[in-house]
Amino acid sequence: MDTIKTISEHRSIRNYKNIPIDDAVLNQILEAASRASTTGNMQVYSIIVTRDPDRKKQLCGYHFGQNMVVQAPVLLTFCADFNRFNQWCRQRDAQPGYDNFLSFTTAAIDAMLAAQNAALAAEALGLGICYLGTTTYNADKLIAFFECPKGVVPITTLVVGYAGENPALTDRLPLKAIVHHEKYEAYSAEKIDELYAEKEALPLTKQLIEENQLDNLAQIFTQKRYSKKDNVYFSKSFLKVIHEQGFMNNEE
Amino acid sequence: MDTIKTISEHRSIRNYKNIPIDDAVLNQILEAASRASTTGNMQVYSIIVTRDPDRKKQLCGYHFGQNMVVQAPVLLTFCADFNRFNQWCRQRDAQPGYDNFLSFTTAAIDAMLAAQNAALAAEALGLGICYLGTTTYNADKLIAFFECPKGVVPITTLVVGYAGENPALTDRLPLKAIVHHEKYEAYSAEKIDELYAEKEALPLTKQLIEENQLDNLAQIFTQKRYSKKDNVYFSKSFLKVIHEQGFMNNEE
Repeated sequence: MDTIKTISEHRSIRNYKNIPIDDAVLNQILEAASRASTTGNMQVYSIIVTRDPDRKKQLCGYHFGQNMVVQAPVLLTFCADFNRFNQWCRQRDAQPGYDNFLSFTTAAIDAMLAAQNAALAAEALGLGICYLGTTTYNADKLIAFFECPKGVVPITTLVVGYAGENPALTDRLPLKAIVHHEKYEAYSAEKIDELYAEKEALPLTKQLIEENQLDNLAQIFTQKRYSKKDNVYFSKSFLKVIHEQGFMNNEE
Repeated sequence: MDTIKTISEHRSIRNYKNIPIDDAVLNQILEAASRASTTGNMQVYSIIVTRDPDRKKQLCGYHFGQNMVVQAPVLLTFCADFNRFNQWCRQRDAQPGYDNFLSFTTAAIDAMLAAQNAALAAEALGLGICYLGTTTYNADKLIAFFECPKGVVPITTLVVGYAGENPALTDRLPLKAIVHHEKYEAYSAEKIDELYAEKEALPLTKQLIEENQLDNLAQIFTQKRYSKKDNVYFSKSFLKVIHEQGFMNNEE
């Protein structure tokens, strides 16, 4: 499928058919992931494939019980990974200095680029995908589940399978909301009102406000979806993971 | 162009022709970026477009003087950005709780997915691209240069333009090096030797070892390209940026 068309028609799929993915197709998706740009061609990421039904059930719990985790035939967990690279260095009498936060950032960037290549390849091959943000929330539990050694941190998960629904394209803010020319242009209060007007006027937005019995969409985000309490809890947890996996030795 | 073909034929381009990019083409690239998956449809990222020749010259310094920064007609700096979202929340009497590390991670993931969509769209439209890892190294200087407010952190930069070179496809480790099934499989010493054998046997590798007068490729990485000293320096600097931009309030 045409690249621009694949990109333009992306929807997150949360309902999957009970159809497995051929090994050859999965292989094409993984190959696509491996062609993504990677810092210094180090490829400091790994992809963990989950297909076993029992393990999907267990994983489902770590992903807040979202049913698509059990439904979809394949889950791809993308991890920042300096373990393999460090081991190679040590076997070559080279002393790796990658146990720090910059290296974590580098590896997380590598993992995300590979993930987006995999997502687009899957969609081009007729599959549906959904990203799971819960991966960073429960990274500690995923590390235990996958038996990840030091140097490995799960960053995101792709649910992959044949779509069992055909949702409409999701709204986006107008392009001028996210693009700045030459300098970051501060948003006036009027500009914010203007940029969010279309989103706030959507029937879906009105429905959500009614269901949640709140004043507006922003309050649904701050009070229901992404509360400060949850964010603080998972911030501590994820920073602890980064530390425990050996990426916080920021002194010489 | 076909999606799988676009993905498979990616090369980083470091030499550009002196040809501008049409506004319509640039717009297609930015639109493609905006279609990427985004956490809760919050779109917590921004893209800063640099086209001004004088500003490209200044930027070039922050990107370690890489000449392509001046040569290419367009630079796209992708930033994690909760500033716009926070401002919207405050204007709607909703109290944003996004001044923490999890929110930074969420926004950085959003930024990277948008960047990879932009990269593939650009390539599908006949342009070349290169990612600049130097963005996180000098994020503090880029924040001052772009006048980014709190809540905004540059994560990566795409150099975009018409290719002035046609490099060969870069080697990658065999797929089995980066893919794990069900659990993370520890690498034996023999396995590491096997997985890196092809890379180590490349003529380019031999040439690099000779030029650098070192024993092997791993030492080029640890001693020349990504030294512990540099990594520690930039780790401190980037963590300071995350703190100063208001993403390290991890207490309720």
